[in-house]
Amino acid sequence: MSTATTPVGTEAMHALFAPGSIALVGATDKSGWSVSTFDNLRASGFSGPVHLVNPRTEVVHGQCAHRSLTEIGEPVDMAYVMVPTTAVLSVLREGAGLGIRSYVVLTAGFGETGPEGLRLEEEILDFARGHGLTVLGPNGNGYINATAGTTPYGLPIPPPLIGGPVGVVLQSGALASSLLGFAQARNVGLSLLTSMGNETMVSVTDVIDYLVDDPATKVIALFVESVRRPREFARVARRAARAGKPIVALKIGSSSLASHTAQAHTGALVGDDAVVDAAFRKLGVVRVRSLEDLIITAGLLAQTGPVRGRRIGVVTPSGGACEVIADRAEQEGLTLPPFAPGTVARLKEILPDFATVQNPLDVTGYVVVDRTLLSRALEVVADDPGVDAVILLSDLPRLPPADLALTLEHFTATARRIREARRPVIVTSNVLTDITEVGRQVQREAGFPYVAGGIEHAMTAIGAAVRWSRTLRESPRPESVAGVGAPVVRAETTGVWAEHRAARLLADNGVPVVPSALAVTEDEAVAAAADLGYPVVLKAVADGLGHKSDIGGVRLGLDGPEAVREAHREVCADLHGRGLSGVATLVQPERHGGVELLVGVVRDPAWGLTMAVGLGGVWVEVLRDSALRLLPADPEEIRAALGELRGARLLEGARGTEPADLDRVAEVVARIGRLAEELGPGLESLEVNPLLVRGSEVEALDALVTWN
Amino acid sequence: MSTATTPVGTEAMHALFAPGSIALVGATDKSGWSVSTFDNLRASGFSGPVHLVNPRTEVVHGQCAHRSLTEIGEPVDMAYVMVPTTAVLSVLREGAGLGIRSYVVLTAGFGETGPEGLRLEEEILDFARGHGLTVLGPNGNGYINATAGTTPYGLPIPPPLIGGPVGVVLQSGALASSLLGFAQARNVGLSLLTSMGNETMVSVTDVIDYLVDDPATKVIALFVESVRRPREFARVARRAARAGKPIVALKIGSSSLASHTAQAHTGALVGDDAVVDAAFRKLGVVRVRSLEDLIITAGLLAQTGPVRGRRIGVVTPSGGACEVIADRAEQEGLTLPPFAPGTVARLKEILPDFATVQNPLDVTGYVVVDRTLLSRALEVVADDPGVDAVILLSDLPRLPPADLALTLEHFTATARRIREARRPVIVTSNVLTDITEVGRQVQREAGFPYVAGGIEHAMTAIGAAVRWSRTLRESPRPESVAGVGAPVVRAETTGVWAEHRAARLLADNGVPVVPSALAVTEDEAVAAAADLGYPVVLKAVADGLGHKSDIGGVRLGLDGPEAVREAHREVCADLHGRGLSGVATLVQPERHGGVELLVGVVRDPAWGLTMAVGLGGVWVEVLRDSALRLLPADPEEIRAALGELRGARLLEGARGTEPADLDRVAEVVARIGRLAEELGPGLESLEVNPLLVRGSEVEALDALVTWN
Repeated sequence: MSTATTPVGTEAMHALFAPGSIALVGATDKSGWSVSTFDNLRASGFSGPVHLVNPRTEVVHGQCAHRSLTEIGEPVDMAYVMVPTTAVLSVLREGAGLGIRSYVVLTAGFGETGPEGLRLEEEILDFARGHGLTVLGPNGNGYINATAGTTPYGLPIPPPLIGGPVGVVLQSGALASSLLGFAQARNVGLSLLTSMGNETMVSVTDVIDYLVDDPATKVIALFVESVRRPREFARVARRAARAGKPIVALKIGSSSLASHTAQAHTGALVGDDAVVDAAFRKLGVVRVRSLEDLIITAGLLAQTGPVRGRRIGVVTPSGGACEVIADRAEQEGLTLPPFAPGTVARLKEILPDFATVQNPLDVTGYVVVDRTLLSRALEVVADDPGVDAVILLSDLPRLPPADLALTLEHFTATARRIREARRPVIVTSNVLTDITEVGRQVQREAGFPYVAGGIEHAMTAIGAAVRWSRTLRESPRPESVAGVGAPVVRAETTGVWAEHRAARLLADNGVPVVPSALAVTEDEAVAAAADLGYPVVLKAVADGLGHKSDIGGVRLGLDGPEAVREAHREVCADLHGRGLSGVATLVQPERHGGVELLVGVVRDPAWGLTMAVGLGGVWVEVLRDSALRLLPADPEEIRAALGELRGARLLEGARGTEPADLDRVAEVVARIGRLAEELGPGLESLEVNPLLVRGSEVEALDALVTWN
Repeated sequence: MSTATTPVGTEAMHALFAPGSIALVGATDKSGWSVSTFDNLRASGFSGPVHLVNPRTEVVHGQCAHRSLTEIGEPVDMAYVMVPTTAVLSVLREGAGLGIRSYVVLTAGFGETGPEGLRLEEEILDFARGHGLTVLGPNGNGYINATAGTTPYGLPIPPPLIGGPVGVVLQSGALASSLLGFAQARNVGLSLLTSMGNETMVSVTDVIDYLVDDPATKVIALFVESVRRPREFARVARRAARAGKPIVALKIGSSSLASHTAQAHTGALVGDDAVVDAAFRKLGVVRVRSLEDLIITAGLLAQTGPVRGRRIGVVTPSGGACEVIADRAEQEGLTLPPFAPGTVARLKEILPDFATVQNPLDVTGYVVVDRTLLSRALEVVADDPGVDAVILLSDLPRLPPADLALTLEHFTATARRIREARRPVIVTSNVLTDITEVGRQVQREAGFPYVAGGIEHAMTAIGAAVRWSRTLRESPRPESVAGVGAPVVRAETTGVWAEHRAARLLADNGVPVVPSALAVTEDEAVAAAADLGYPVVLKAVADGLGHKSDIGGVRLGLDGPEAVREAHREVCADLHGRGLSGVATLVQPERHGGVELLVGVVRDPAWGLTMAVGLGGVWVEVLRDSALRLLPADPEEIRAALGELRGARLLEGARGTEPADLDRVAEVVARIGRLAEELGPGLESLEVNPLLVRGSEVEALDALVTWN
């Protein structure tokens, strides 16, 4: 599948999504896609002309058809193309001649089928570029612009089409319909839904760019199989963050990239999926794990915007629900703080005697007797100074109530209390069932806010909203320092730099490294040991030698000249025996105690330099316990990454180790990351393993650098 | 809250759930509960008489009311009691005199409110027991017997009430309505739904017992806040398993029990929630984590029964959905094996050229052109010898289709292919939206099977079904060996037995223990060391001394007589200095290498003896990496538990350790468990830490036993 690399301009995107007239080329009663597209445009109230083009049939969809675009005889803004694969290019040619700038190509059979299809697809791209055309697809169902009521979309749109704040972009045709149906069932209004197809020209990032500018869109929801243009994605994600518009993404497909850094341990730690996690975190993209969470989280964020903090007050009519919410809150990192004394006192006045006044609050089954109990309690809890937001558990009616007016009155009163509350109120239903027609009516007529669908998914969404809000509050990170620094590099940057060269590179560039001396002769080794202080460690050095411990090239606990002499002799003999050149040993003082970290930087083919930090030993080898960050990463980000490690408690002094000075550790690790960036595109990987931490003393004991 | 301890008899439960006539005592137009109960009985078509009792009103709910139960003047099978709290007992008195055996008490204000309420509740229990009455509640909304159409239930039941195979038992009133609504939205039929209330007499386990016998019930769904009678629960869960009826449970509330074994490390590992996990696993109870999963999983198990294995074929009309399913399958431990060559060949004949024939299968968007594509592909995949079950992704219509007959024809054909398929077929929809009226009609009229709601929850349910099926296939475990064995015990079983006594106990009862000798004098210590072989370890011994390492009471690496002498002198002096009696040292040969395990048994107040196994060191101290099993646990269960550990790979020889003989390890650990059981109720905890594993050599290096 070919992929465009140039962003499509803003004006072209606007023209694509807001045509005044549309021609359906290849329209026929025999095609479900044609029928759907035509019906959709009619049902959504598209006000411009819809021309049908079919060279062989006079009447299509009950309307006179034209034999060609040319025969339409009046200006057309957009062509929706359903002709056979090989005929698509000629439609573009004809359209270009007539001044038609925008195209949606539903036709399949291109890059997704093989080399011949790919060739046809590239022809289309070349032609479109050469003639200033904008092409969405091919192999995509088109789009639904619900804001404008423009729906050139090849699958049925079940009524009602609800306009609203969520823009949806999908790399899947079939699931677009599912998400559309689900959004409707949640009464989540959409601004635009786009089924991308092959992204030959218009790509996901182009549509995001458009949605960032689109005043109707408050939240962007993505379904992506792969991020095809990571750099562009990063750019538009940053734009969205600056505009305060959250991007919520369901990124699927966990096939792992081939390990691209065989020399470094880090390679195995950097799975495709984990890098995507790191990238999304860096860019403030909210990652969700199911189709349901995609819409429910997007809907919630459209309602709440940023949430001030993670302290949540909970108001429900059910003790069971309170416990379900408490369990889920813990999992999502939310806290349910005790109510302030004033809140407790006020609640006691309202609630029946047998109610237990606590957070989460169960106002009891007496809501059956007094329907206002819940919203009066809400009013009080929303005044509590100790909470950042309030969850109100409330179901919309599913069936038309006996007395609709009474129901509307009740929901209107509650809606008013929610609007006037001093903290944001998040309404959630108990379980995930559809908001039915009467539910939508109540929301519309009572001005009742968004209802997150079911405690389970609502809590996922609230957790995501709180984390996103925190990201938003953090100071913006620099995008990159690459090319800024001028690192000291003393040798030719090719191949593998084993310990002695790698250590020098680190030391030259401000990373603390254990003292060491290179010894070619036994005497040099002994002199170095005396100089550094016994006991010492002696390590094998030779050209191109990577993992020296695999060949027994590390000798520990050498406590005198004879031991050093013997070790040097043996190690060098072994290296010579293997036919290696540049043979020597590296002498270092032996270190004891502390906690060993691994810091590895690799170049991810998609996202660029990625840093893994982890604890050494079993932590990495058995547990794969590491945290990833895309570079650049400042010390604050590094501290957060260290905090994510399962073994984080070791750094805090568990098992009697000296507590690490985490500020110092983060500073050194960040320095390693900056160095990796400064080393430029020639760097393939840089690994410090171990980085020894003893209190505030942090030093690299070993390192490996690979150039490409 | 008082809790009954005696199971209610089968006949009494049948009488409770199948009354021929019902009296609503305390019926009034002013109470929503009364209105709902009356309306429910009428709407569900309860065929017997419904008498209303109100001493002060002549007409209630448009029907003549009686002043008292007595005034009804004809036999009544069940009284539904809604009178004030203090009047409940007199209703029971009157009813008992009239021969009314069954009661549902909706009235609240009992044990849940405090001591006075508890006293009233106990009075009711005493009276009911004394007079052979059956009482459900108080403080519960009653039940819905959908099989019989008998619905004495105090909250609205939204139509339609769908009868079916799932029995629901809830320790929550408010959530019962949510689950009812959700089951309806999933078109999952219920046999019985019971809102338990305070479980004064009839408890969750009584209802489970009833459901195990109930021919209409195939699956039991539980919502529980606490398992109030664990022993009874275990008994009925085993009955359910024998009957092949899965129990699916949402157990909420993660408040942790106080650590009840301060002397043993194990205490901290045994959280309330983890023990529930272990208990449910042992009993074959499927634990789910959300209200949605409770119903969706129960509905699935009712449809499929046991599933043969975890190899799943997937048939969808969407590439995106395939990837979502593949991601989730991996998380659930399901495999999607490649199709057999014969399957591939047959699929290629059916599918369009551009389709990729693989598992998971996307039959492509050409389903729009040929609606039979999906079910014809299903037929082929269900023949594949390498799969145990097939997932078919298919949505029911949500809105009435233009041509209902055509739709019914299509679904009827698909339903036939599903029925005739050679592997069980699990139908799942893309997203979790309601099955609407037309969807229910299609299922009913086309005989279309259960549709699991949305890929996300469906995959959770399939994973649970596969795991439950595996449990069912395993040979039944013995319920307990307690009291069977007669262990050798050489001292008084009180207080804390530190190492030397605990080690003797283990050795006497078939657990391999490192050789050791108790030394009171220096000479004895030296003689013992010579006997055992240098280097040795020397450990402090004194009456009541628990964690000796905390006081520096362990000396390692003693490589000669002088070192032993000095260490013995120092250790004993220190112990005397602390005013301890029974001072001595324990001499052992020093062991090196291997993997250290921790094996701890504690007595959980609810579930009894519970064993934790884990790796020692950081694994336990930092990671809390342990796996729990309820005792008795056979070697096979122990092996499974060891396999769950994050550090499991260490036992397999990661990091250069000798691979452990897992059969031997499991045998020794199981022996420790059996010993704990044989020691009887006097045992509070037993901990072996470490149990050293070197290949097939397994021996306890230290142990601690606490008696209560």
